[in-house]
Amino acid sequence: MVLKSKDQYLESIRKLDADAYMRGKRISDVTRNGFTRLALNGIGQIYELSLDKKYETLLTRKTEVGAKISAYCSIHRSKEDLVNRVRTARLICQKTGVCTASRCCGWDALNALWYSTFEIDSRFGTDYHKRLKRYVARVQGKDLTFAGALTDAKGNRSLKPKHQPDRDMYLRMVDENRKGIVVRGAKSMIGGAIGSHEIIVQPGVGFSEAEKEHAVAFAMPLNAEGIIQVVDMQPGGQAKLEEGFDKGNVSFGSSESLIVFDDVFVPRERVFMSGEYEYAAETVTKFVQLHRMVLGGCLAGCGDVLTGAAALLAEYNGLSRQLSDRLAEMTYFSEALYAQALGSAHEGKGTPSGAWFPDPLLANVTKISVSRLPYEIQKIAEDIAGGIISCMPSELDLRNPKIGPLVEKYYRGIRGVSAEKRLRAAKLIQSMVAGPGRLGALCMHGGGSPAAAQMTIRQLADLESKKDMARKLAGIQEAS
Amino acid sequence: MVLKSKDQYLESIRKLDADAYMRGKRISDVTRNGFTRLALNGIGQIYELSLDKKYETLLTRKTEVGAKISAYCSIHRSKEDLVNRVRTARLICQKTGVCTASRCCGWDALNALWYSTFEIDSRFGTDYHKRLKRYVARVQGKDLTFAGALTDAKGNRSLKPKHQPDRDMYLRMVDENRKGIVVRGAKSMIGGAIGSHEIIVQPGVGFSEAEKEHAVAFAMPLNAEGIIQVVDMQPGGQAKLEEGFDKGNVSFGSSESLIVFDDVFVPRERVFMSGEYEYAAETVTKFVQLHRMVLGGCLAGCGDVLTGAAALLAEYNGLSRQLSDRLAEMTYFSEALYAQALGSAHEGKGTPSGAWFPDPLLANVTKISVSRLPYEIQKIAEDIAGGIISCMPSELDLRNPKIGPLVEKYYRGIRGVSAEKRLRAAKLIQSMVAGPGRLGALCMHGGGSPAAAQMTIRQLADLESKKDMARKLAGIQEAS
Amino acid sequence: MVLKSKDQYLESIRKLDADAYMRGKRISDVTRNGFTRLALNGIGQIYELSLDKKYETLLTRKTEVGAKISAYCSIHRSKEDLVNRVRTARLICQKTGVCTASRCCGWDALNALWYSTFEIDSRFGTDYHKRLKRYVARVQGKDLTFAGALTDAKGNRSLKPKHQPDRDMYLRMVDENRKGIVVRGAKSMIGGAIGSHEIIVQPGVGFSEAEKEHAVAFAMPLNAEGIIQVVDMQPGGQAKLEEGFDKGNVSFGSSESLIVFDDVFVPRERVFMSGEYEYAAETVTKFVQLHRMVLGGCLAGCGDVLTGAAALLAEYNGLSRQLSDRLAEMTYFSEALYAQALGSAHEGKGTPSGAWFPDPLLANVTKISVSRLPYEIQKIAEDIAGGIISCMPSELDLRNPKIGPLVEKYYRGIRGVSAEKRLRAAKLIQSMVAGPGRLGALCMHGGGSPAAAQMTIRQLADLESKKDMARKLAGIQEAS
Amino acid sequence: MVLKSKDQYLESIRKLDADAYMRGKRISDVTRNGFTRLALNGIGQIYELSLDKKYETLLTRKTEVGAKISAYCSIHRSKEDLVNRVRTARLICQKTGVCTASRCCGWDALNALWYSTFEIDSRFGTDYHKRLKRYVARVQGKDLTFAGALTDAKGNRSLKPKHQPDRDMYLRMVDENRKGIVVRGAKSMIGGAIGSHEIIVQPGVGFSEAEKEHAVAFAMPLNAEGIIQVVDMQPGGQAKLEEGFDKGNVSFGSSESLIVFDDVFVPRERVFMSGEYEYAAETVTKFVQLHRMVLGGCLAGCGDVLTGAAALLAEYNGLSRQLSDRLAEMTYFSEALYAQALGSAHEGKGTPSGAWFPDPLLANVTKISVSRLPYEIQKIAEDIAGGIISCMPSELDLRNPKIGPLVEKYYRGIRGVSAEKRLRAAKLIQSMVAGPGRLGALCMHGGGSPAAAQMTIRQLADLESKKDMARKLAGIQEAS
Repeated sequence: MVLKSKDQYLESIRKLDADAYMRGKRISDVTRNGFTRLALNGIGQIYELSLDKKYETLLTRKTEVGAKISAYCSIHRSKEDLVNRVRTARLICQKTGVCTASRCCGWDALNALWYSTFEIDSRFGTDYHKRLKRYVARVQGKDLTFAGALTDAKGNRSLKPKHQPDRDMYLRMVDENRKGIVVRGAKSMIGGAIGSHEIIVQPGVGFSEAEKEHAVAFAMPLNAEGIIQVVDMQPGGQAKLEEGFDKGNVSFGSSESLIVFDDVFVPRERVFMSGEYEYAAETVTKFVQLHRMVLGGCLAGCGDVLTGAAALLAEYNGLSRQLSDRLAEMTYFSEALYAQALGSAHEGKGTPSGAWFPDPLLANVTKISVSRLPYEIQKIAEDIAGGIISCMPSELDLRNPKIGPLVEKYYRGIRGVSAEKRLRAAKLIQSMVAGPGRLGALCMHGGGSPAAAQMTIRQLADLESKKDMARKLAGIQEAS
Repeated sequence: MVLKSKDQYLESIRKLDADAYMRGKRISDVTRNGFTRLALNGIGQIYELSLDKKYETLLTRKTEVGAKISAYCSIHRSKEDLVNRVRTARLICQKTGVCTASRCCGWDALNALWYSTFEIDSRFGTDYHKRLKRYVARVQGKDLTFAGALTDAKGNRSLKPKHQPDRDMYLRMVDENRKGIVVRGAKSMIGGAIGSHEIIVQPGVGFSEAEKEHAVAFAMPLNAEGIIQVVDMQPGGQAKLEEGFDKGNVSFGSSESLIVFDDVFVPRERVFMSGEYEYAAETVTKFVQLHRMVLGGCLAGCGDVLTGAAALLAEYNGLSRQLSDRLAEMTYFSEALYAQALGSAHEGKGTPSGAWFPDPLLANVTKISVSRLPYEIQKIAEDIAGGIISCMPSELDLRNPKIGPLVEKYYRGIRGVSAEKRLRAAKLIQSMVAGPGRLGALCMHGGGSPAAAQMTIRQLADLESKKDMARKLAGIQEAS
Repeated sequence: MVLKSKDQYLESIRKLDADAYMRGKRISDVTRNGFTRLALNGIGQIYELSLDKKYETLLTRKTEVGAKISAYCSIHRSKEDLVNRVRTARLICQKTGVCTASRCCGWDALNALWYSTFEIDSRFGTDYHKRLKRYVARVQGKDLTFAGALTDAKGNRSLKPKHQPDRDMYLRMVDENRKGIVVRGAKSMIGGAIGSHEIIVQPGVGFSEAEKEHAVAFAMPLNAEGIIQVVDMQPGGQAKLEEGFDKGNVSFGSSESLIVFDDVFVPRERVFMSGEYEYAAETVTKFVQLHRMVLGGCLAGCGDVLTGAAALLAEYNGLSRQLSDRLAEMTYFSEALYAQALGSAHEGKGTPSGAWFPDPLLANVTKISVSRLPYEIQKIAEDIAGGIISCMPSELDLRNPKIGPLVEKYYRGIRGVSAEKRLRAAKLIQSMVAGPGRLGALCMHGGGSPAAAQMTIRQLADLESKKDMARKLAGIQEAS
Repeated sequence: MVLKSKDQYLESIRKLDADAYMRGKRISDVTRNGFTRLALNGIGQIYELSLDKKYETLLTRKTEVGAKISAYCSIHRSKEDLVNRVRTARLICQKTGVCTASRCCGWDALNALWYSTFEIDSRFGTDYHKRLKRYVARVQGKDLTFAGALTDAKGNRSLKPKHQPDRDMYLRMVDENRKGIVVRGAKSMIGGAIGSHEIIVQPGVGFSEAEKEHAVAFAMPLNAEGIIQVVDMQPGGQAKLEEGFDKGNVSFGSSESLIVFDDVFVPRERVFMSGEYEYAAETVTKFVQLHRMVLGGCLAGCGDVLTGAAALLAEYNGLSRQLSDRLAEMTYFSEALYAQALGSAHEGKGTPSGAWFPDPLLANVTKISVSRLPYEIQKIAEDIAGGIISCMPSELDLRNPKIGPLVEKYYRGIRGVSAEKRLRAAKLIQSMVAGPGRLGALCMHGGGSPAAAQMTIRQLADLESKKDMARKLAGIQEAS
């Protein structure tokens, strides 16, 4: 049995002791730090559920030799795998209420590289795909969590990488020898890195020949020499440092890191692209194709939790019946996201490498929806919740001997509903609309910006065939 | 070969000579009447494409004995059939730009009854399912078009059927004997009835025991004694009566009829429900489950045509590049509808009767989207089209020797684009946003009202499990 | 008393006998033609209400010598005048349900030219303003209706006027002498021209020095030599030709024309700009500043009618209570438009010429809302109306002795509501969402495209001062 | 000169030493507590700007005897006052970026009570209005800040006050004698109470005769015996406790409190309603009429700041030109709110008491917009900001000698833009979309729920007159 237990996972991350900072201080033990431990719990929950027979289909796979491995370390080999990918995303968000990004993004990066290393090797006779296969076997065997890293620092966004005054604004190889390469640069918005064993780095944009030093992909353990991590705590993050229910989601959290590669040596065996700029854009494309689909499942799952919390509050306030329409509207938005993700999966196709990818047009359509619909869900949640989400006592007030009874008296709900229950439900909503890992942060930029998705849609829209349809119906003959 | 050619279809409808009226006059030959012939062309196009090898997968099926029949006469027997159902809907709307409702609604009604006759027989030992099977074999063998009829006159919407001052407001059996039943009432909004051989009638709402006389389903040829049809021409309908391109869509049209059953005798063999009120609601449910999914495909297809027409106009005006974002936004909306319909299909399930139905929650979600997103598509189309769609000369102006050259001069587009081309593209858009069969008419009430879909979503939302998710994350323990 | 009665107005237009065509034929008597007479009735209604004491404040003004003139021939001389301008727009749309564009656009063009002739004369020592004053006195004295014309044919939209292969794509002076000028070109989307005595032409875009031949403004009677009019009948227009209620709005209509100026001689006295390209853009700006504000009033008025019709149908269907939320939502959208228009008026300012104009930023904001909110109103109206608006018998069916009684039976509403009442209310909605003069046509391009309004907003947004606010709050010091 | 300086204000609040708690601990000095001092700064900014000649018109008024007082202590006596009220709201939000609710709500409560005490006295011969006049003179003379309190604890929302198991769920008189009354209950969501000298309490809903004990209005200093305050710190609140720019808005903050009235004695002179249940609803109505208008100004001002911050980030990223459309869209939404608020003001009317109130319909329309449009602004701000707002180092990271230079290198913007500048702009956005006082919290429930506003719109919509308009145009004659 290669699957790690949650405890084994936590212990392995503790031992890793990556060089990570938060608010200007090195984090000494990520499993004890109030903020990071919640993020680890989120990922740990995947480990825990993976051992549960009930979730076997979604969370595990069998290797060719019959070993049971984590689905998060697998390659999608069929349409069914893609569909299950969406279901998995929804399930985990339902169970944690947060983005457990590292296992998600790493999974998608692995699949993207599976595709492009195969293509590169076919064209250039390189052996990246073989290296990657060994890497995949390794992460499967050790049940590792690996974050996926794409987004560079970017500097002046209106300049191409080759015109940046500081070329490090896009991560690049600064040296190369027979043993490996040396990389410099930074990747930002790396979800869940603090809870990951490894990081898989791939290009975040396409590159031209003059920019081939940026066309680099590799995997490294996060405690490698020269890798420095800065964790963002976001508004509301400090509340996470404490015990109790003020943090809303009492068990799980998410995290985002900046990862700096300060002249890091990457051994050849761990390099999956080094200069093949012709495949940079395609690797990005394959990653986002998967990830933009997956987000539909994630946000549906988060939408479910938010709908549930709103339904609880409505019940506690005695308004379940009156608010049933609005709750149905929340459900509509979550399910619309889910249906689009499933549609993308269903229309997926295999590639010569054996890896499957969702329909690119529909996956990008899902992303656009992901950047819009959750705001509607949030709006209704805030509406249903009522003013309480902008004015609540803390748990410490409730525990105070003088004011506690007053808080209890004035915040209780209908008969049998204590103030604590109401506050817990309200604080869960509050944390999802305004805390770290709030929906807005997740949905707008996860998987790239809406503008990037829109550009892809523009390219895939096949306007010519649509013009033909219109021409036929309007009776327009273009001169040949 | 049982498939009819388009000509055979038209001839068979002409011969049927149903008792149909439009604007107060009986229609003498529906294949020649300017308005109805376009609607027949729309349906005829299905017949034509069904003979085309290219569309074989979508438009035909094989029977168990290997005969090739129209898909429109088939029962969905797999998930793949459901997915193809959506694709078919999109294809036909792309090819015709209109709603060829009869074959669609009839198809869905057939499948709904396939399910419920099976269930009724299982419970009551009746033989409806056997009758229906014979009926199905008949329509397959003759390649018939049969409209589907659900919506009753309804009278006072706030009263239940049994409290209506005039019980005929919901179609009902007024007599029954060994040979058959006599029905009275009216069904409205029957798309494509004027181009149909038969009509399949089923309940439009659920009924209680006291209302069992309304729980009736049957099929009749449209030229049967006592069946009277009133066709609505809608705003813009008169333009359809003429030759030329002023009608926008120059070849195809749609139609909606009121069908009055003025004490019509239905022979036993054609009766598929007669009093089993317990199954009325379920039959409706199964119909809308299919139809609300299908609409996602239809509107995506119509959206494609509208996008194509807008792209043409943009090109003719020299603005293709400047408007590419807006065209991508149109594509986004069409594909979002499509993805949702596909998601519904993908999550479909089989029933004991052998018929498959899409996921009810997602199908209803698709319907809500169908009632909203096409307005966004329309809005952008009108924006891109520019003022021309509210001020255009007619083809007759263009042909007038005095003003024609002036119209030609001032309405031409970029080099090489004649006024006629621009006007044709603009009139196609105009007809789709403001003519009979405009998107708004199709998307808001097709498959029932958005309110009905929302009620279903409310019922299927499973708020309890969502509350549980929220409780777990918020750490709320309900007293047991 | 200079105010014309409605009959005097109609007679004067009949006598004018402009050279107008519709569907390839010259219109012999616009007061009898089924289509154009409705448009004339719309304008005629303004004449009628102007004589009503009740509407005196809104529809009339006093000249300096105390004569009571039509407000539609006046110059806005105060904030109150602007506010009343909005109220007038709403009132007339409430009373007619249509766009009586000519008197509106002409009014706004008159005010725009009042401003710019004053400015031109101040700078160049010309006498345009004096000419315009005499013209204003004339139209006031004769109570004339004058359409306003801006939009040129435009040709290739991506080319500037001076680069058009055919320079006539923007109306221009082709000759000039001491007696006057000769103009050639076409103006499109001229609302209400068919019911106007005169047409005021002004530039539709800004021009550079190389394009000064296009910088021309003037007024001409519509029956002048060389002026040719082509009226568009739009989808649903043919229904307007008949008696009865099938046309929805039984009394009033609107119209849009293309006006071709086929080398028309304009006497000097009627020329208000001839080559002063420096003021072309500003004249457009002043026009749209007014017109984009006014549209908020118009669409609020049309929204009121649509809300009323939806409320009627809800009542006839027995659903007033159940639909009260949705009706309130319709009201919300109408009033939001109105409030924005009033806000624009309130922030208006006077100019050296004495003419007042609304706040340019808020007026353009109103226009953007006008291009969006009416679609929401329409969507709800179609939702409330129910399927009936896509399937209704015509009045002729109702009058048919055989099918009439059936139609009556099955289309009647709650007790006491005849089929005719329900059909009339439904057809009114239908005509407003899908007939000529439908909301969509009015709101999207009236006053110019939303894109033009957005560009103005961009220019007026004063981002620098907003950046300063942000800098101060974020504590950012820019190096000086 | 009665106007306090900012320092005098702060000192006066410090001396007040109200019994206030935050996170379970009594706040010892609100001017030093990191969280509350920001809220006081917000209010303090009003005091500061009031002494600035530049803002004299908006922030001050003259009394009848010529004394210059704070506008925040005045009664609106004209349309101009109402318009200035909106401008003031926008100005203060532009200058502080937060809701300085106490002075706003207190101002509106004062005006509402001005109206209703006058009405009550007229009807019942009481002397509430005289008392209020003295109170007004006092707060004007001392330039006090008084919060406004409406929202009760409410308990089971589906039960009327009289059916609540615990009648204290709505604040009520529990005793009354010649000297005054004793009140018990709690008011929640009291914006800015922590920075207020006094609190004005008025009913939050209407009451029936059986509930007259709840119909109570009064003013008390916040340090009165029995008044206990619990301040909510919200997600992100802890970041406010520290120095530096991580809090986003470096100078100003907002606050919300629960105020418990634990059997508080209110002297007669400070009682403005005590049992006159007939005027409870009307007092609420007058308050929200004002407040819902005002919010349009507030959110426009906050929208300005957010637009400015997004523009800054766009500039720092080198994308000003590319994002100009989106920035214009943000401006559109802010100005639409402003225009609606101005429209409401413009249509305002005076009352017999001398106090003016905005148009009730338009004010409620503004509120609905306030609950929707800011989400659009937020969405675009998050889009423009890019992923940085979900992953940023803290100021402490920037100051760390090891990682600081790396953060500086990888977070800097275009030439000349330091990491600190980019982070400051991004953190300002972050604090406005996800910190305490975020737009969502302000806009959804400020001035009552959108549902309450919708209900008012329903009541004021005058559907009957709209039905009449429709009837006339459709030619419908109702039998008389």
